[in-house]
Amino acid sequence: MRFLGLLNKLNSLLIKTTARELPKRSMACSRYEYVKTYEQDDTILPNVWIVIRIDGKKFHKFSKTHNFEKPNDENALNVMNAAATAVMQEFRDVVLAYGQSDEYSFVFRKETAAFKRRSAKLLTYVTSLFSTSYVMQWSKWMSLPLAYAPCFDGRVVLYPSDENLRDYLSWRQADVHVNNLYNTAFWKLVLDSGLSNQTAEERLRGTFSADKNELLFQEFGINYNNLPAMYRKGTILLRKRVISDGDNDQNGRQAIVPLHEDLISSHFWKVHTEILGKYVPGTYTAPEIMPRLVDLQLNTKQEKGDYEKKQPENLAGIS
Amino acid sequence: MRFLGLLNKLNSLLIKTTARELPKRSMACSRYEYVKTYEQDDTILPNVWIVIRIDGKKFHKFSKTHNFEKPNDENALNVMNAAATAVMQEFRDVVLAYGQSDEYSFVFRKETAAFKRRSAKLLTYVTSLFSTSYVMQWSKWMSLPLAYAPCFDGRVVLYPSDENLRDYLSWRQADVHVNNLYNTAFWKLVLDSGLSNQTAEERLRGTFSADKNELLFQEFGINYNNLPAMYRKGTILLRKRVISDGDNDQNGRQAIVPLHEDLISSHFWKVHTEILGKYVPGTYTAPEIMPRLVDLQLNTKQEKGDYEKKQPENLAGIS
Amino acid sequence: MRFLGLLNKLNSLLIKTTARELPKRSMACSRYEYVKTYEQDDTILPNVWIVIRIDGKKFHKFSKTHNFEKPNDENALNVMNAAATAVMQEFRDVVLAYGQSDEYSFVFRKETAAFKRRSAKLLTYVTSLFSTSYVMQWSKWMSLPLAYAPCFDGRVVLYPSDENLRDYLSWRQADVHVNNLYNTAFWKLVLDSGLSNQTAEERLRGTFSADKNELLFQEFGINYNNLPAMYRKGTILLRKRVISDGDNDQNGRQAIVPLHEDLISSHFWKVHTEILGKYVPGTYTAPEIMPRLVDLQLNTKQEKGDYEKKQPENLAGIS
Amino acid sequence: MRFLGLLNKLNSLLIKTTARELPKRSMACSRYEYVKTYEQDDTILPNVWIVIRIDGKKFHKFSKTHNFEKPNDENALNVMNAAATAVMQEFRDVVLAYGQSDEYSFVFRKETAAFKRRSAKLLTYVTSLFSTSYVMQWSKWMSLPLAYAPCFDGRVVLYPSDENLRDYLSWRQADVHVNNLYNTAFWKLVLDSGLSNQTAEERLRGTFSADKNELLFQEFGINYNNLPAMYRKGTILLRKRVISDGDNDQNGRQAIVPLHEDLISSHFWKVHTEILGKYVPGTYTAPEIMPRLVDLQLNTKQEKGDYEKKQPENLAGIS
Repeated sequence: MRFLGLLNKLNSLLIKTTARELPKRSMACSRYEYVKTYEQDDTILPNVWIVIRIDGKKFHKFSKTHNFEKPNDENALNVMNAAATAVMQEFRDVVLAYGQSDEYSFVFRKETAAFKRRSAKLLTYVTSLFSTSYVMQWSKWMSLPLAYAPCFDGRVVLYPSDENLRDYLSWRQADVHVNNLYNTAFWKLVLDSGLSNQTAEERLRGTFSADKNELLFQEFGINYNNLPAMYRKGTILLRKRVISDGDNDQNGRQAIVPLHEDLISSHFWKVHTEILGKYVPGTYTAPEIMPRLVDLQLNTKQEKGDYEKKQPENLAGIS
Repeated sequence: MRFLGLLNKLNSLLIKTTARELPKRSMACSRYEYVKTYEQDDTILPNVWIVIRIDGKKFHKFSKTHNFEKPNDENALNVMNAAATAVMQEFRDVVLAYGQSDEYSFVFRKETAAFKRRSAKLLTYVTSLFSTSYVMQWSKWMSLPLAYAPCFDGRVVLYPSDENLRDYLSWRQADVHVNNLYNTAFWKLVLDSGLSNQTAEERLRGTFSADKNELLFQEFGINYNNLPAMYRKGTILLRKRVISDGDNDQNGRQAIVPLHEDLISSHFWKVHTEILGKYVPGTYTAPEIMPRLVDLQLNTKQEKGDYEKKQPENLAGIS
Repeated sequence: MRFLGLLNKLNSLLIKTTARELPKRSMACSRYEYVKTYEQDDTILPNVWIVIRIDGKKFHKFSKTHNFEKPNDENALNVMNAAATAVMQEFRDVVLAYGQSDEYSFVFRKETAAFKRRSAKLLTYVTSLFSTSYVMQWSKWMSLPLAYAPCFDGRVVLYPSDENLRDYLSWRQADVHVNNLYNTAFWKLVLDSGLSNQTAEERLRGTFSADKNELLFQEFGINYNNLPAMYRKGTILLRKRVISDGDNDQNGRQAIVPLHEDLISSHFWKVHTEILGKYVPGTYTAPEIMPRLVDLQLNTKQEKGDYEKKQPENLAGIS
Repeated sequence: MRFLGLLNKLNSLLIKTTARELPKRSMACSRYEYVKTYEQDDTILPNVWIVIRIDGKKFHKFSKTHNFEKPNDENALNVMNAAATAVMQEFRDVVLAYGQSDEYSFVFRKETAAFKRRSAKLLTYVTSLFSTSYVMQWSKWMSLPLAYAPCFDGRVVLYPSDENLRDYLSWRQADVHVNNLYNTAFWKLVLDSGLSNQTAEERLRGTFSADKNELLFQEFGINYNNLPAMYRKGTILLRKRVISDGDNDQNGRQAIVPLHEDLISSHFWKVHTEILGKYVPGTYTAPEIMPRLVDLQLNTKQEKGDYEKKQPENLAGIS
């Protein structure tokens, strides 16, 4: 007993001794705090469109490992779309997102004050939430399990004028056209005609779009323009009020909706005036079969707010 | 037959017409390509330490939703450690990672040429891979499923001198000390003594480290210094050659190993000379019970290379 | 003779020895050249207005040392105007310059490719040429010699929209109004009414513009609006074709002309459409007495080109 | 009288009306002030060497116009040295300046807090003061008057380590060696041997340093190493306490002194320990004939302080 008491006292003394040193340590804390001043300001210039583009890293291999259908895997594209939808639900200042292949662009409105326009904050939150949502959405759309952690890079690009922004999006949509036409022809030659990759490549080398259209039609009876719009045009995500015949409950509720329209022509911008003009979400007349991407949103109890206030339980959540 | 042939011709003509317009479109492609020049160079100054620090967004709420043990959840910390390990397996130029609470810092060696030192590339790859690995590691360590997609922000900070780097890490470790001592006392008062959060807070307001040590000892018989080192010191990840008695196979194999040492004192830097000196991984004499974090690495067939060449199938993979 | 020959040989040998070391040195040259890679890219975002503003350093003291008239020294302002004119003669992409007090703003058109839009190049060339021109112009306008080297700082500010640019210039012109009204009242009280600086300051503290106008009119019979426009509005420099009755030779010749108009109202922008619209210099109907600033330009043999091709011998030259 | 009174009232009313609008204007002032937020932070990373290098613009033509002696004009170099001395007198945190040909580098010590390390401020003050001092020094050293305003560009380069800084300076000094040896040979061939520029160039093409040394010695009897050190090594400016036999008054006074030593070898850094070590100015034992650059400083009544407090009346002043 006595011995234990002594031990206790000793221990207590030992702690006190250590403790007496601790104030030094917390002094030390402030001694080291100067390193915080090495962080550099990266506030983005006001009044410019902020575009954040995310790209899959080594997705050529990733798509092979996970047996993506060629030239387009509808489900894999929808994992991208669902992850992008989660980002848009979170960041209300993203007025449009555009995705194709393994990339997605997010357009923040010019006036956004999100994260005080600090570049790294905006960039990493979008990249991180897209990345985690991609993993969590995976099993909803794909049958094979994820073999390893996917990875995306991201970049910030600034566009001062509306014309610049439209040209940026046109650039991405022109890109999907060129690539998808090529890929469609290439994989037809490989999968249907049994050509080797190399022979298919040689066959297509130097051809114009017209030639590839012709080839698809003549050899495979395919009218390229009749292929699914998502493959040919990519996916545009907009925030809209949903008008649906079927379900009165859902009428007028906001959702992120996928469009596969031509955004190069001016028609698109005349219809969706909320993008460049005053930001009031337009309406979306749902097709007979509601896209699953929208359905998943509408059939989750809606909560207002962003990541600050709520978690996007609907889409990004695991069912 | 004839009619069909005519139809075919018509269709073909239609395609040709569209096709004839397509070269314009691919001209258009180059017409839009100027927007690429709006991307700005963000190459990092050579010969400085590059630190990337990742922070959990709204992890206070996240830890509540997922019932994290208070004040420390060993498994939740290990999800962080496992995600960070995946990043270090991928980026060989990360010579040290340091984690505590919901944050992790990655130190790239001064001379790294990874991604040509482009700031956004380094930042987003690390943030993205950490984020996806966190989600994929989750079920290996936690019993509750993930309720929603977690999110991390990231920043890049540059430190010119070795002293700056040591001070940065000391700053983070001094921070964990101050916070953990407070949290340990706070949660003891709340969980064991039944104080309300507010009363516990008031009780601790204005106290020094010495007082909190004393309180823990006197009221709860806890010698703070005997608590698990991971809680008090955070986790340091280093690349080491593992020396293990048990398994000859594993002897000498490289792995990312977790240490919970004091890195403020100079002793740490004398032992682990590979960090500031010539980069040759040191050795790690494994404890009797190999940490699961290391075990998972050693029991996966080792492959050389980085993300460019292989996927980190061991840790970041789903079993 | 023989000895000299020997000496020569020895010397030659010595040189050879040194010389043999020199290739190493020029190798050394390339050994050091890596330091060039530490220069960082500072290319300015395309499609934004580039404003460079120059401010006199410690011009309060400078104006005292050189006995500037108070509240405005016409000649000293003209040294500023002449230096700014030299800059505009040099940089054809400067579409407008605006000066007041000891500051001058230079507006580069959005599309400028001068110096590949490298920020430091643009900034330092403008600052340097303004600075040297200021010194060289001095004796043309001032009677006292320069007592010491004046110094100017400079900064680059970017404005994405035309509205931003107009607001920037309005900000500077609103500034000159507020300051000049105050200074006019202040110096009247000090110089004419014999108040001490402190008493004059107290007298004006808390007064509105209306009060100061009233004070000038009631106590000194001054209608502020009748004071020289250069003092009230600052100086706007534009590139114009000069229309002059007097001299047929000069008719239609281009020159940098000084205006002292209100640029806050939209009227100014409707008249001088070349600034925001297609860049075609407008015309300038010279007043009966041609401003000396313009006269100096017209009476120098005009040469085409910029600093790359010619030196601005007219204005910036010493007569 | 009455009429005049009426007129006064009217006028006063008019002013009041205008004045009543003025508060709006000064409101307007604040309405425009938002443009100030477009200025972006450019604070330099702490703890790195800041080098500002200034280059003459189009000095090839400038040297021709002003009949500079070839290959080196001692007086023209001294105008550069005098302008750089003015900059060093002003900025006490410049620990070393190095000049050669039409360029000058200024090295700010790592810890400098001048202008809060804002890049544009540091860059433009140095460039502007160098530029104006160059013009004001001109007539002290040159016989021809300045034909037009010279112009200099400037850049900021950051060097994290002492080794980087030494290598930077070595790079510049290796550069002067290579260029000056070539120029010396070239102008000898042109001026003494009467070769055309083209023939001289062809003669030297592909030669090594050894060859040019040999040529100078064999054809012109010139031992290159005996040429003035300023031409071969450039000029290093350091702040030193002057030890002079001649004048007791000047003994121990601080001045900016010119050295023409080899700074590539480590000897230089062992002698002038104040540059990389603790900053305490060393001593300078004046040669029998005091360099005019130093003499001008010592024979001006010394005043303490920098541009904030005094003007450098000695060197930069006009006599």
